[in-house]
Amino acid sequence: MAIDFTLAPEHEEIRKRVRTFIQEIVIPAMDDLKQDDRDEYLRTIFHLRSQAKAEGLWLPHMPKEWGGMGLGHVELAMVQSEAAKTRIGPWVLNCAAPDEGNMHTLLHWATDEQKEKYLRPLLDGVRMSCFAMTEPEVAGSDPTLIRTEAVRDGDEWVINGHKWFISNARRANFAILIARTEQDVPEGSRGANTAFLVDLPSPGWNDVREVETMHGSTGHSEIVIKDLRVPDDQVLGGRGNGHRLGQYRLGPARLAHCMRWISQAETALDMMVDRALNRYSHGSLLADKQGVQWLIADSAMELYQCKLMVLHAASKIDKGEDFRTEVSMAKHFVAGSLNRIVDRAIQVHGALGYSTDTPLANMFQHARWARFADGADEIHQMRIAERTIAAYQATGSTASATGGLPL
Amino acid sequence: MAIDFTLAPEHEEIRKRVRTFIQEIVIPAMDDLKQDDRDEYLRTIFHLRSQAKAEGLWLPHMPKEWGGMGLGHVELAMVQSEAAKTRIGPWVLNCAAPDEGNMHTLLHWATDEQKEKYLRPLLDGVRMSCFAMTEPEVAGSDPTLIRTEAVRDGDEWVINGHKWFISNARRANFAILIARTEQDVPEGSRGANTAFLVDLPSPGWNDVREVETMHGSTGHSEIVIKDLRVPDDQVLGGRGNGHRLGQYRLGPARLAHCMRWISQAETALDMMVDRALNRYSHGSLLADKQGVQWLIADSAMELYQCKLMVLHAASKIDKGEDFRTEVSMAKHFVAGSLNRIVDRAIQVHGALGYSTDTPLANMFQHARWARFADGADEIHQMRIAERTIAAYQATGSTASATGGLPL
Amino acid sequence: MAIDFTLAPEHEEIRKRVRTFIQEIVIPAMDDLKQDDRDEYLRTIFHLRSQAKAEGLWLPHMPKEWGGMGLGHVELAMVQSEAAKTRIGPWVLNCAAPDEGNMHTLLHWATDEQKEKYLRPLLDGVRMSCFAMTEPEVAGSDPTLIRTEAVRDGDEWVINGHKWFISNARRANFAILIARTEQDVPEGSRGANTAFLVDLPSPGWNDVREVETMHGSTGHSEIVIKDLRVPDDQVLGGRGNGHRLGQYRLGPARLAHCMRWISQAETALDMMVDRALNRYSHGSLLADKQGVQWLIADSAMELYQCKLMVLHAASKIDKGEDFRTEVSMAKHFVAGSLNRIVDRAIQVHGALGYSTDTPLANMFQHARWARFADGADEIHQMRIAERTIAAYQATGSTASATGGLPL
Amino acid sequence: MAIDFTLAPEHEEIRKRVRTFIQEIVIPAMDDLKQDDRDEYLRTIFHLRSQAKAEGLWLPHMPKEWGGMGLGHVELAMVQSEAAKTRIGPWVLNCAAPDEGNMHTLLHWATDEQKEKYLRPLLDGVRMSCFAMTEPEVAGSDPTLIRTEAVRDGDEWVINGHKWFISNARRANFAILIARTEQDVPEGSRGANTAFLVDLPSPGWNDVREVETMHGSTGHSEIVIKDLRVPDDQVLGGRGNGHRLGQYRLGPARLAHCMRWISQAETALDMMVDRALNRYSHGSLLADKQGVQWLIADSAMELYQCKLMVLHAASKIDKGEDFRTEVSMAKHFVAGSLNRIVDRAIQVHGALGYSTDTPLANMFQHARWARFADGADEIHQMRIAERTIAAYQATGSTASATGGLPL
Repeated sequence: MAIDFTLAPEHEEIRKRVRTFIQEIVIPAMDDLKQDDRDEYLRTIFHLRSQAKAEGLWLPHMPKEWGGMGLGHVELAMVQSEAAKTRIGPWVLNCAAPDEGNMHTLLHWATDEQKEKYLRPLLDGVRMSCFAMTEPEVAGSDPTLIRTEAVRDGDEWVINGHKWFISNARRANFAILIARTEQDVPEGSRGANTAFLVDLPSPGWNDVREVETMHGSTGHSEIVIKDLRVPDDQVLGGRGNGHRLGQYRLGPARLAHCMRWISQAETALDMMVDRALNRYSHGSLLADKQGVQWLIADSAMELYQCKLMVLHAASKIDKGEDFRTEVSMAKHFVAGSLNRIVDRAIQVHGALGYSTDTPLANMFQHARWARFADGADEIHQMRIAERTIAAYQATGSTASATGGLPL
Repeated sequence: MAIDFTLAPEHEEIRKRVRTFIQEIVIPAMDDLKQDDRDEYLRTIFHLRSQAKAEGLWLPHMPKEWGGMGLGHVELAMVQSEAAKTRIGPWVLNCAAPDEGNMHTLLHWATDEQKEKYLRPLLDGVRMSCFAMTEPEVAGSDPTLIRTEAVRDGDEWVINGHKWFISNARRANFAILIARTEQDVPEGSRGANTAFLVDLPSPGWNDVREVETMHGSTGHSEIVIKDLRVPDDQVLGGRGNGHRLGQYRLGPARLAHCMRWISQAETALDMMVDRALNRYSHGSLLADKQGVQWLIADSAMELYQCKLMVLHAASKIDKGEDFRTEVSMAKHFVAGSLNRIVDRAIQVHGALGYSTDTPLANMFQHARWARFADGADEIHQMRIAERTIAAYQATGSTASATGGLPL
Repeated sequence: MAIDFTLAPEHEEIRKRVRTFIQEIVIPAMDDLKQDDRDEYLRTIFHLRSQAKAEGLWLPHMPKEWGGMGLGHVELAMVQSEAAKTRIGPWVLNCAAPDEGNMHTLLHWATDEQKEKYLRPLLDGVRMSCFAMTEPEVAGSDPTLIRTEAVRDGDEWVINGHKWFISNARRANFAILIARTEQDVPEGSRGANTAFLVDLPSPGWNDVREVETMHGSTGHSEIVIKDLRVPDDQVLGGRGNGHRLGQYRLGPARLAHCMRWISQAETALDMMVDRALNRYSHGSLLADKQGVQWLIADSAMELYQCKLMVLHAASKIDKGEDFRTEVSMAKHFVAGSLNRIVDRAIQVHGALGYSTDTPLANMFQHARWARFADGADEIHQMRIAERTIAAYQATGSTASATGGLPL
Repeated sequence: MAIDFTLAPEHEEIRKRVRTFIQEIVIPAMDDLKQDDRDEYLRTIFHLRSQAKAEGLWLPHMPKEWGGMGLGHVELAMVQSEAAKTRIGPWVLNCAAPDEGNMHTLLHWATDEQKEKYLRPLLDGVRMSCFAMTEPEVAGSDPTLIRTEAVRDGDEWVINGHKWFISNARRANFAILIARTEQDVPEGSRGANTAFLVDLPSPGWNDVREVETMHGSTGHSEIVIKDLRVPDDQVLGGRGNGHRLGQYRLGPARLAHCMRWISQAETALDMMVDRALNRYSHGSLLADKQGVQWLIADSAMELYQCKLMVLHAASKIDKGEDFRTEVSMAKHFVAGSLNRIVDRAIQVHGALGYSTDTPLANMFQHARWARFADGADEIHQMRIAERTIAAYQATGSTASATGGLPL
C-alpha cells in the first residue's frame, strides 16, 4: 500500500504482448484486405480471433475459470486502450461492446443453465448478442419510464413494445431485453422492470430498420415487438431486477468506452502536433504560434486528466469500493475531452480536417455519440451532484465525492 | 509496484496527527486571540511553533538529518493540505512560502558555510527570508530579461536594480537576490544571472513601499537597489546559475501552492453545497435545480482532477523522474479550478457571497493571484505545448507528455 | 423608418457637449482635489452640479416639463456612457443610481402630492433617496418571497422586517420600501407586496451597519425595521402593486447600469491593448502573440455586441414596445462581458494588474457585483428562456424572442 | 438619420413577397418531387427559377440596370434569410454561392467585353461558375502563399498548379482562377497574384475528384492544372490584383453566408424548444429544468447578437464605410453560434438528434464547415485584433474597432 502509478511487471508484460499482437498481426492483416469483399473480411477476423485465443489474448475482462485472462480493471484499461488502436481490435480479443457488457451481466445474474446456454457460446466466440433497453418514445436516460410491457400468460410472458438504437441486433443470436412487468409500482420506481433472454430470430421481434446516424448506418436497429412470447425461465436476474441489472452492467462498460476513447483522443493529439509542425501560415509554423500552442497544451492536459481518472476509477472497481461517482466523472469528462480534442485537431488541419482524407472527420462524427452513449452528459452531472450533496449531508464534507483521495 | 491510490499506514498515521494538531490546537488558539493585538498574535504563533516542534510536526519537507520529517512529496501533499485548513497552519509547521522554497534552494545549492549561516537558523525557526527576482520593468515570467545588474569590484559585487512583489521582505533577515552578472551572453540566454545571499537590512537595499493589491497590502515589497555591495562568497550556487536555481526551486514550491489551493477549493465547494441545501427560490431549493447541480458537479469533477494531478506530480518528484510537465499542468489547472469553484460558490450565495460576511469574498481576491503566482497561466501553457511537441518529435507519440501513464 | 445606427445631429451635438463637460470640467476638478478632505470633496461636487445645471446637462433621463433634458433611452445611453468615464459623472448630472430609478418610479406611480414632496426635491438635487427591497433571509431575485410585513392599524401601517444591501441609505432623506401587505395570496403570487414612502430618519428604521463587500464598505446598509409606522397616504402606486412597481423600475435602471459598464469595459480594453503594445516577453511584444491577439479580439467582439444590444434595447423602450427580453439579455451579457474583459486586461498586465497601481484591480472587484445587481445571471437566463418558450408556443417560432428584428 | 432597427415599408413588402414565394411555391414544389429522379429535380428547379424571375424575385444582390432587385445589403440580409429557409431557395433566386460572389466580382472588376461574355449569362441563369483559389499544399487562409503559377508566353499565360475544395467546379462553365504571376515580389506580398477567367472545360484543367467531406461528397473538386493556356485578355482585374480582388469579393460573400446560417440556427432553436416542451425525464418536462433553460437562453441570446451584428455590418456596407472589422466579427461569431446552437439542439434531442430522423445531424455536419469557410476562426481573430490595435494606435481609443457606434 502506497501511492503508485505504475503497473506490476507481469501486467506491463501483458500490455506489451497485446501491443505487439495488434501492431504486428492485426493491423497488417486488416491493411491487406481487399475493400468491399465482405466474405474475406469476416474470414480474416475469425482467423485473427483464433490467433488471439491461441496467444492467450482472449477475453481480457473475464475470470480465468471462464477462459478469460483474469485481469483487474486497471490492467483491462491498458489492454482495451492498446486494442482500440484499431477499430477491430476489441472484437478480435472478444471484448467488444455489447458482447463484453452482456458477458459481465450473464456472469453475475444468470442461472447455471442460462450460463451454459448463453454465456458459454459468447465466450467461445461462436455467438453474438445485443442489449435492448432504449425506446424512442421515452427518455433513454430514465429507464423508470420504459413502456415495453411484459404480461404473464401461464408459463410465458407476452411482450409488446418498441425499442431503438439496439446495437448489433442484426448479428445477434440472442437479446437481453428490458420490459416493464410490474404495473402497480409508482412511476419513477426502480422495481418495475425485468430482464428477459430472447432467442433471435423470434416471432414478434421485428427488426424494422437500421437507424441512420451522423456517422452512417452502423447497426443500430429499431425493433417493433409484437406479442413476443418468452418462457418464464428466460427471465434473467429475477423479476423486478431489470433496473439494477442495467445499472450494474453499465459501470464497467462505461469505463471500457473511456479506454477506447482515450486511445482515439491520443491519435487526434498526435495528428494535431504533426500538422502544427508541418503547416506554415502568416509568417511562422503553426507550432510556433501562441494560440495553437494553447490548443495543444489544453488537449494534452485534458488527455492527462482522462488517463488519471480512468486509472483511478478502475482501481476503485478492483478494490470492490463504490465506483459510481468516479465512473460518472470519467465517462462525462472523457467523452467531452474526446469531442474537444478531435475538434481542435480538425481546426488545426483546416479544410483537410473536414475532408475524409484523414480519419479526423470520421472520428468527429463518432465522438458526438460519446456524449449520449451510456448516459447523457446531463445525467452524469445530475448523479455527480446528487452524490456530492449526499456526501456533504452525511459527513459535513464533500471530500468523499471527489475521489476519497488522501489529499 | 502496482497502481495504488492510498497512503502507506505510517503516512496515514502522520496525516491524522497533523489534522488533529491543526483542528484541536492551532485553530482554537487562533480563535481565542483578541483582534488587533499584534504582540499577542506573534506570541501565540511562536508558542504554537514550539508545540509543533515538540510534537515532531516540524519541517515536513526537510530530510531528517536536517531536523525535518523526511517526507516524500506525496506525503507532503497531504500534510500541506491539512495544514492549510487554517491560513497560519503552514507557518506553524515551518513549511510556509517563501521560507519553504528557500530552504530547498539552500539545501541544494549552498556551500557548507552558507548552510550553517542561512539554512540552519531558517530551519530552527529563528530567522526569515525572502526571494527577490521579479522586476516591474520586465516580464516576471521571463527571467532572461532581468535588468538588475551586479558588477564585480574586487572581492565584492556592486548591485543596482529594481524589484517588486518581494513577499515577506520586511520580516526577512536575508534575501536570495537574482541579478544579471554576465553582459556578453545574448538576450534570452539562461546563463546570464547569478543568485546572491544578501543580509537584511543592508545599505543599498531600499524597501520603498508595500505594493497594495486586490486583497490589500500583505507584505509584497518594492525594493530599489542602489550600490548594494555583496562579498563574492555570498554568491549562491555559482556564477551564471541564477536561472537554473530559480527553476529548480519552483517545481516543488508550485506543488505546495497547489496543495494549499486544493484545500481552499474544497472549503468553497462545501459552502456551495451547504448554501444550495438551505436557499429556496422560485419554487424549489437551489440544490434541486438542474443548473445549480451543474455548478456543483463541475466543481466536484475539477477538484477531483486537481487532487489526482497533484498526487501524480508529487509521485514523480519522489521517484526522481522529470516532473516539469506534470507540475506545470497541476499549477495551471489547480489555479484555474480554484478561481472557478470560488466564483461559483459566490454566485450560489448571491449578495451574501459578495459581502465579507463569509470568507468567500476574501478567497476570491486571493484566488486571482494564483493565476500569476509562480508562472502565469500562459507560461505554463507554452511550456506544456513545447514539451508535448518535443515528445512527439522524439518518439512519434505525445504519450510521454500526458503523464507517461500505463494507458 | 429604415435601419440606421447613427444619432440624429442634434443628439450627436448633446453627446459632444457632455463629453466636453466631463473631460474639461469634471475630471480636472476632481484631479485637483486634496485627498481625504471630505468637506472639500462635497463642496466641489455640489459646485459641479450647479455648473451642470447651468449648462443644461442636468437630469438627462427626465422629461423637459420636469426640468430634464427630455432624452429618449437611446440618447440617454450615450450620455450615461460619456458621464461614466469618471465615477462621479452620473452624480454630477443627477442621473446616478438609485436616485435615477427612484425618479422614474415616482414620476410614473406617485400622486401629485407625493411628486411635490418627494420627486421635486430629488430633481432639484437637494434631497437623496434609497430603494429598500432586498432581504438577507430570502432570495433577492424572487421578490414574491419578501418577509417584511406591513399591517394596517387605523390610518397607518406598522412595518416589521429586515433589509440589506440598501445602497445610499445613510445619505437618503427618504426610502421607497417594499413590504408584504396581503397575507391571503398564495406564495409566488405577484400581488402580495406594496411600496411605501418612508421619511428618513424615522423611529423604527434602524440602520445597523454598512455591509462590507469585496470592494470595501461603500454604503450598502443593513436595516432592521421594528414597528415602523407609515401613514396610509404614503403608500406608493397602490396596495398590492409593489412587485409591478419594482419590475417597472428595473428595466431602464438595468440599462443605465449597462451603459456605465460598457464605459468601464472600454477603458479596460484600451488598457489591455496599450499594455500589449509595450510589454515584451519570450521573444516578441505581447501584441504580436497569437494568444494575446485572441484575448483582444474576443474582448473587442464582446464589447461591440454589448453596444449593439444596449442601443437596440433602448430603442425598444423609446418605441413603447415590450423591452423585457432585450433588457434581460443586455443586462446578462454586458455584466458578463465586463467581468471577462477586465479579467483579461488584468492577465495581460500580470502582477501590475493585480496591484492597485492601475484601476483594473478595483474595476475587477466592482465588476463581480454586476453579475448579481438588478437580477442575478441565473434569473435573467430563466426569464429569457421562459419568453423564448412562450414565443414559440404563441407563434410557432422563436423569432420574436431574439429581438423581433427584420432578419 | 436616427437609430432605427426597422425596415422601410417598401422593403418590408419585399420581405413578405419572398417569404410567401418560398413558403407557398418553392417548398411545396420540392416536397412533391420524387426522390432520386435527378432529371425531374433539375426541371423543377429551372421552372422555379423562371417563376422567380417572373415575380421579380431574381438577383436580389444585383443593381436594377443589370436585371437585379437593386437592394442594399441590409435588405439583402432579410431576403437571403427568408430564402435560406429551404436549401434550394438562394439558387432559385439566383443568389447562391459561388455564383453570387462571382457576379459581384465581375461587376466590379471585369472589362465590358468580359461582362458581356461571363457576367450576362450568369445573371440570366444560363451559365454557372466557380472560384478557384484554395490549394492543398499551403494555408488557404494565407493567399500570399499561393503556388499555382502563371508564366507569360507571348499573348498567353501558361498555368500549372493544384487547387482543391473548388465548389461547383463540375457544373461550372467558367472559373475565376487565382495564380501567382509575379516572381520577384517577396513572400507575404499582396501584389503577387492575378485572377484569370478560364472557360470550362479546358485542356490542362483536370478535375481529378470530388473531395469527400464530413457531410458527404457535395461538389468540392480537386483540380490539377497542367499547362493550361489562357489568353492575356482573360486576365480579370489587372495583373497583380488577384489578392485585392479576392478580398473585395469576400466581404459581402461572408455576410451572405451569415444570413443563411442565421436561418439555420433559428430552425435549430425552434426545434430545441419544441423538443423541450415535449420530452419528459426524471420528474419534469425538459423545458422546466434550469439547465435546459440555460441552453435555450444562451442560444436565444447568441442568435439575437448574430442578427444585430449582421444588420449592422450590412448597414456599413450600404453606407460605403469600411466594413471589414464588422464583417470579420459577424463571420466569426455567427459561424460559432451556429455550431453551438445546433450542438445544443442535438443534445436536447438525445439519440434522436444523433440520428438522421431530424435534420439536425445533417446541419451539425455542415455547420462544422462554417468555422473554416471564407476564413478560419483564427484568421478573423487575427484581423480583428490587428484592427483593434491599429485603432488604439491611431486615436488612443479602441472605440472605432467596436463598431464605431454612438455609445
